[in-house]
Amino acid sequence: MLKEDDPSLLKRDEESHIAELNDVVHQRTRLGLLVVLRETQQADFSYLKSRLKLTDGNLGQHIEILRNHGLVTIRKGHEGQRARTWVKITRAGEKALATEIKTLRSLFDL
Amino acid sequence: MLKEDDPSLLKRDEESHIAELNDVVHQRTRLGLLVVLRETQQADFSYLKSRLKLTDGNLGQHIEILRNHGLVTIRKGHEGQRARTWVKITRAGEKALATEIKTLRSLFDL
Repeated sequence: MLKEDDPSLLKRDEESHIAELNDVVHQRTRLGLLVVLRETQQADFSYLKSRLKLTDGNLGQHIEILRNHGLVTIRKGHEGQRARTWVKITRAGEKALATEIKTLRSLFDL
Repeated sequence: MLKEDDPSLLKRDEESHIAELNDVVHQRTRLGLLVVLRETQQADFSYLKSRLKLTDGNLGQHIEILRNHGLVTIRKGHEGQRARTWVKITRAGEKALATEIKTLRSLFDL
């Protein structure tokens, strides 16, 4: 048994990086939403829908998950006659996105 | 209407990056499996289980998805008395992982 050839002796830090990839943030659509919201700070539903090519149901579902985790806030309002739903990234949302980016960077040695 | 203030005029390339994040590869556990397999080239089930802290069922399910997409191959064999299932990353698997990393890099300007 050549202990040196044991793959378990290779760098073992990936599993911890993977464990740190929080599914709330890592999931593709939610990651896209957070990236866009980090850039725009706030955006309305119709903008997010067209920007990320999502259906109403799909967008609503993912925004709800992000809100339940305190990563975005929602504000309903009007612009002229038009009802609007605004979504804003929170400080926790920005932190969570930063953690995701840092984790991916470690994982891939980017 | 100040056209310049229209957020849709901000850099619009995230949606294409997000669309390119292939869920087969992007999903957290499968991403971890591909990262480990890229490093070890091949590994057996029990090693992957302990390395990524997965259950049998969970590992089997994700390996099956990767195999169905041609990203890994599976070989059953023995080492002494012990039955082993070896998983190997394919050329397509390495390419898919490289594409994921490239896409994330573009998305985050890493």
